[in-house]
Amino acid sequence: MTTSQTNNKPSLLESVNTPSDLRKLPVEQLPALCGEIREFLIAHLAQNPGHFASSMGAVDIIVALHYVFDTPNDRLVWDVGHQAYAHKLLTGRRDAFEKQRTLGGISGFPTPLESEYDTFIAGHAGNSISAALGMAIADKCTPGHEKRKTVAIVGDASISGGLAFEGLNNASNHPNDLLIVLNDNDMSIDNNVGALHSYLSDLSTSAGYNRLRYKMAGYFRRKGILTDNRKRAIIRFSNSIKSLVSKKQNIFEGLNIRYFGPFDGHDVIKLVKIFREIKEMEGPRILHLCTIKGKGYTKAEENPTVWHAPGKFDPETGERFCSGKDGNPPLWQEVFGETLVELAEKDERVMGITAAMPTGTSLSALAHAMPKRAFDVGISEGHAVTFAGGLAAAGKKPFVAIYSSFLQRAYDNIIHDVAIQGLPVTFCIDRAGIVGEDGVTHHGLFDITYLRCVPSMSIASPADEETMRDLMFTSLQFTTPLAIRYPRGRATTPDWKSPMREIPVGKGRCVSKTEGARIAVLSLGPVLHDVQKASDILKDKNVGIDIYDMIWVKPLDTQLLKEIAQSHDAIVTVEDGAITGGFGAAVSEWLENEGMALPVKHLGVADQWIAHGSVDQLKHICGYDAEGIADTVIKLQESL
Amino acid sequence: MTTSQTNNKPSLLESVNTPSDLRKLPVEQLPALCGEIREFLIAHLAQNPGHFASSMGAVDIIVALHYVFDTPNDRLVWDVGHQAYAHKLLTGRRDAFEKQRTLGGISGFPTPLESEYDTFIAGHAGNSISAALGMAIADKCTPGHEKRKTVAIVGDASISGGLAFEGLNNASNHPNDLLIVLNDNDMSIDNNVGALHSYLSDLSTSAGYNRLRYKMAGYFRRKGILTDNRKRAIIRFSNSIKSLVSKKQNIFEGLNIRYFGPFDGHDVIKLVKIFREIKEMEGPRILHLCTIKGKGYTKAEENPTVWHAPGKFDPETGERFCSGKDGNPPLWQEVFGETLVELAEKDERVMGITAAMPTGTSLSALAHAMPKRAFDVGISEGHAVTFAGGLAAAGKKPFVAIYSSFLQRAYDNIIHDVAIQGLPVTFCIDRAGIVGEDGVTHHGLFDITYLRCVPSMSIASPADEETMRDLMFTSLQFTTPLAIRYPRGRATTPDWKSPMREIPVGKGRCVSKTEGARIAVLSLGPVLHDVQKASDILKDKNVGIDIYDMIWVKPLDTQLLKEIAQSHDAIVTVEDGAITGGFGAAVSEWLENEGMALPVKHLGVADQWIAHGSVDQLKHICGYDAEGIADTVIKLQESL
Repeated sequence: MTTSQTNNKPSLLESVNTPSDLRKLPVEQLPALCGEIREFLIAHLAQNPGHFASSMGAVDIIVALHYVFDTPNDRLVWDVGHQAYAHKLLTGRRDAFEKQRTLGGISGFPTPLESEYDTFIAGHAGNSISAALGMAIADKCTPGHEKRKTVAIVGDASISGGLAFEGLNNASNHPNDLLIVLNDNDMSIDNNVGALHSYLSDLSTSAGYNRLRYKMAGYFRRKGILTDNRKRAIIRFSNSIKSLVSKKQNIFEGLNIRYFGPFDGHDVIKLVKIFREIKEMEGPRILHLCTIKGKGYTKAEENPTVWHAPGKFDPETGERFCSGKDGNPPLWQEVFGETLVELAEKDERVMGITAAMPTGTSLSALAHAMPKRAFDVGISEGHAVTFAGGLAAAGKKPFVAIYSSFLQRAYDNIIHDVAIQGLPVTFCIDRAGIVGEDGVTHHGLFDITYLRCVPSMSIASPADEETMRDLMFTSLQFTTPLAIRYPRGRATTPDWKSPMREIPVGKGRCVSKTEGARIAVLSLGPVLHDVQKASDILKDKNVGIDIYDMIWVKPLDTQLLKEIAQSHDAIVTVEDGAITGGFGAAVSEWLENEGMALPVKHLGVADQWIAHGSVDQLKHICGYDAEGIADTVIKLQESL
Repeated sequence: MTTSQTNNKPSLLESVNTPSDLRKLPVEQLPALCGEIREFLIAHLAQNPGHFASSMGAVDIIVALHYVFDTPNDRLVWDVGHQAYAHKLLTGRRDAFEKQRTLGGISGFPTPLESEYDTFIAGHAGNSISAALGMAIADKCTPGHEKRKTVAIVGDASISGGLAFEGLNNASNHPNDLLIVLNDNDMSIDNNVGALHSYLSDLSTSAGYNRLRYKMAGYFRRKGILTDNRKRAIIRFSNSIKSLVSKKQNIFEGLNIRYFGPFDGHDVIKLVKIFREIKEMEGPRILHLCTIKGKGYTKAEENPTVWHAPGKFDPETGERFCSGKDGNPPLWQEVFGETLVELAEKDERVMGITAAMPTGTSLSALAHAMPKRAFDVGISEGHAVTFAGGLAAAGKKPFVAIYSSFLQRAYDNIIHDVAIQGLPVTFCIDRAGIVGEDGVTHHGLFDITYLRCVPSMSIASPADEETMRDLMFTSLQFTTPLAIRYPRGRATTPDWKSPMREIPVGKGRCVSKTEGARIAVLSLGPVLHDVQKASDILKDKNVGIDIYDMIWVKPLDTQLLKEIAQSHDAIVTVEDGAITGGFGAAVSEWLENEGMALPVKHLGVADQWIAHGSVDQLKHICGYDAEGIADTVIKLQESL
């Protein structure tokens, strides 16, 4: 589908294949181009789902940036990046957009592997200022590059994270001309939290003063008054005027970064004017632009959280084609979310914490049921974990729900603020394993490895809802940290609310045995279902396997492992995560160290980066879908 | 040694064994007590080294806090914690202080394992606000605990880190009465950096206004005007007055935290008065106290960086008993620091980055030689790595020097901002392995494991200076990330500046062979010298081993490994780090997966937390000093 098919007007968008084409348009045509981009996004994302609302909101800023800045020589550095679809359309990827987020197609996020216009990876929030600062300072140190421009685009949710603050705090330490564009749409995936957020709202109300101030800065610059020597004095003078006018102080200027705004982030002609003025200024600057998430599509403007990633929808009516709940097994996150409410009802120590993902983790269930016991700390994974440590030190039983790949940001907090003290925090690690369409930055592959080496940490992964509930229930008795990992997507049992039982720690189970089987397959987590399908394939080929659901990575069921090693000729381990240092590795380490050496084949994600595609496609490529498991068993059997 | 031995006056300090004793003293005696504590610290730390200057600076604040707050029911939460010696002296650990930082003695940092007065672990900067916020909110949700007080003490260096910012940003979201005491001594270990730092300096100059404001707040509170409803309005009113008086805005109040100060942090009587007033206020508050690092010992006040951890010294003259450089082998950090300068001279792409540890990593050498190419970003490990990613994306060759245990804070930055893009950042991981006296929070045990699972990452560890230099030189040719790990302490060769050569990637070497040896010992890093000593012990017992220095964990020298497996009956691996998922695990994983299963004993740090002691003592306890290695070989040989 192309834009010309969605309407009959002559298409501006089709004439723009690169930013050079864009720059040939008269500025008056930009609003129409923005309209066409929005139409294109609506038409395409209705069919091939992606991040909708934030991309609609950033269209005008993106068009103005590419219009004014000399990309790709000038650099745009995106943050998170799911707002940057318009950037992809303007940089040679309009036709490829049809296959975005699918296997072999373009990524849903900016990535340097895909385009020279994508200067840095994006996906985890808050990195753009630090990365762009590196580029801006590098240019200042490189003969011939001193005039190259770097722009970091950052959202109001990202800027509340510690990494963005560290970037801001360092922005004025070394000579650079970094421009930071704050795209303030007043929310992250869910509602924004934190004091900085209300601060930004207040700031937006003082627009009158800032217009004045912006004009003054322009005047100072044109008159040659705004030199480096005088910059600080003028900032201070300017701030004191501002305090008089707005009754508010400005955090950014407290950090020695000149602040401009807030301005309307949807007035593309004015944005071009602003960018042209601010482009040539020296020193780090922040430009505050206010946008509306979902801009241009009423349903999305009205309910931006739902329309963050709405799935397929009817572009005319706005009806979303969601698969209903009825009769389907629950999402893993729902098993977590609803079980947590049950636990909180039973045990008043229970509290829930997440970091800007209450909907994605279903912590929202607790937030609705018991708002005082649910904490969404915003994009602050490190704080989330240390805060949970504080709750636990004061006698509470915190459950921290964070996606596996984002929990990497709290690694030291897990070690230092929880595990060293042996505090009983339960980590509910969502999106553990291959996540599918979100791709390389979002797969949750490393948690088993990076947690397994941490003393006093226990790690388990349930294969089914019943075990998930039992693990969560059992964790109430833990006096040390426990990590429970589970994947994105649906579990298997529609009627899943089993009574919760305490289960033994570090005990796996034999799922099935076949007479004469020489190979044992040790499974961790929901991949058990793939192992069982593999077993069916193998039966047809007269190869029998014994299947074990180990449940616990740590403590490992070494008694069961010993029995398995003594009664089989080889072992296959299967996990939904990185093989290196993971569950299979734990099995190998223990066996060799005990002198019980036998061949062990590890299935999971090998030592490589995995791009986007459907979960099934990617598991197939990695060789741990049912077919891959069966193949491995057959080859191993032949080699014995 | 007791204080009565260092002077002949009647000792107040000896009468204070707990904070309850302290509270019995009349407030007028507190200055004398502070003086005695300083004398005690000087006398003891001269003999048994520790963190001197910051502890001297915090004496008055600590005395006033314990005097006013009802510890341990009220909670003090330390940040970093090396300033908290006076806290240890006042909480039943005066006699134990003699053995602080030694094996079996008390820790140099606060730890809940040691005392009920130590409410949370400290060591890694910036965690106190988040942890204390957890406690303060937990108390608000716990019947009977609503009036319990929690105080987070944080330094001006810590507060510039992302974690502290995340804590501040969340402090006003949920009801709590957290008091944050900002101990502003105007520097961290080295000079403080970042915009927030100059901001704090400016703030300190506006003390006149703040005294006025503090009095006003007290007045409002006494009159019942300062209710929660009116708080924001009053803060805003107050800030606008402040802006008029001080010409500066206040970052903290932008974050909805009431700000008081700055006040003199050495006037203990006034501190008591301030704490009494501020203690009963509601809602999150920050109290800004200015202190002098090294206060009370002139030499330390004059040169606080040197006196941060001065080692042994003569208390009378201030002469420090440093082991001189001459004739000694270099510190590992010096090999890094001086080699980096040589590389920077050869290759203009080379840049150096550290996070508040230029002296500790010897990045200071580059900072002196080429100040524009050395970056100390302050306590911001995450930013340091993402910033390096930005430099690399712009064509530079960054060397990031961070201690192993602190690099845990940049784990996601390593994965997301460097490794996914395959950017050629060289990580020079200092303090890798057992670090000795700093103990559990500072041992660098997990880096091999947490980096080994990251695709595109290479990992090496040199056994000697020559290999270290060759690895750094070779890294100039890398187009992907490389981690080089090396320990705290001295290397082995006094004359170490060998010419640098490119060495093959992923190639180990055979160090020595013994006729008829059945066991191969595979070593990684400087523990090779322990393996060689073990070999001497074993020779005396007629047990021969073959010794390999593998150099590379990743890529592993699988060709060499295959030869070793085929020509030996068993393998022992030795590494200075966690066994779980580490170097030995890599060996096991590969062998079993290849079907070349043989017994492999892993030596290193088992799955447990290791406290403080000398490096030699701790390696002995962990069983990988020469004696432990020899014992393992003998037992393994007997079992074959």
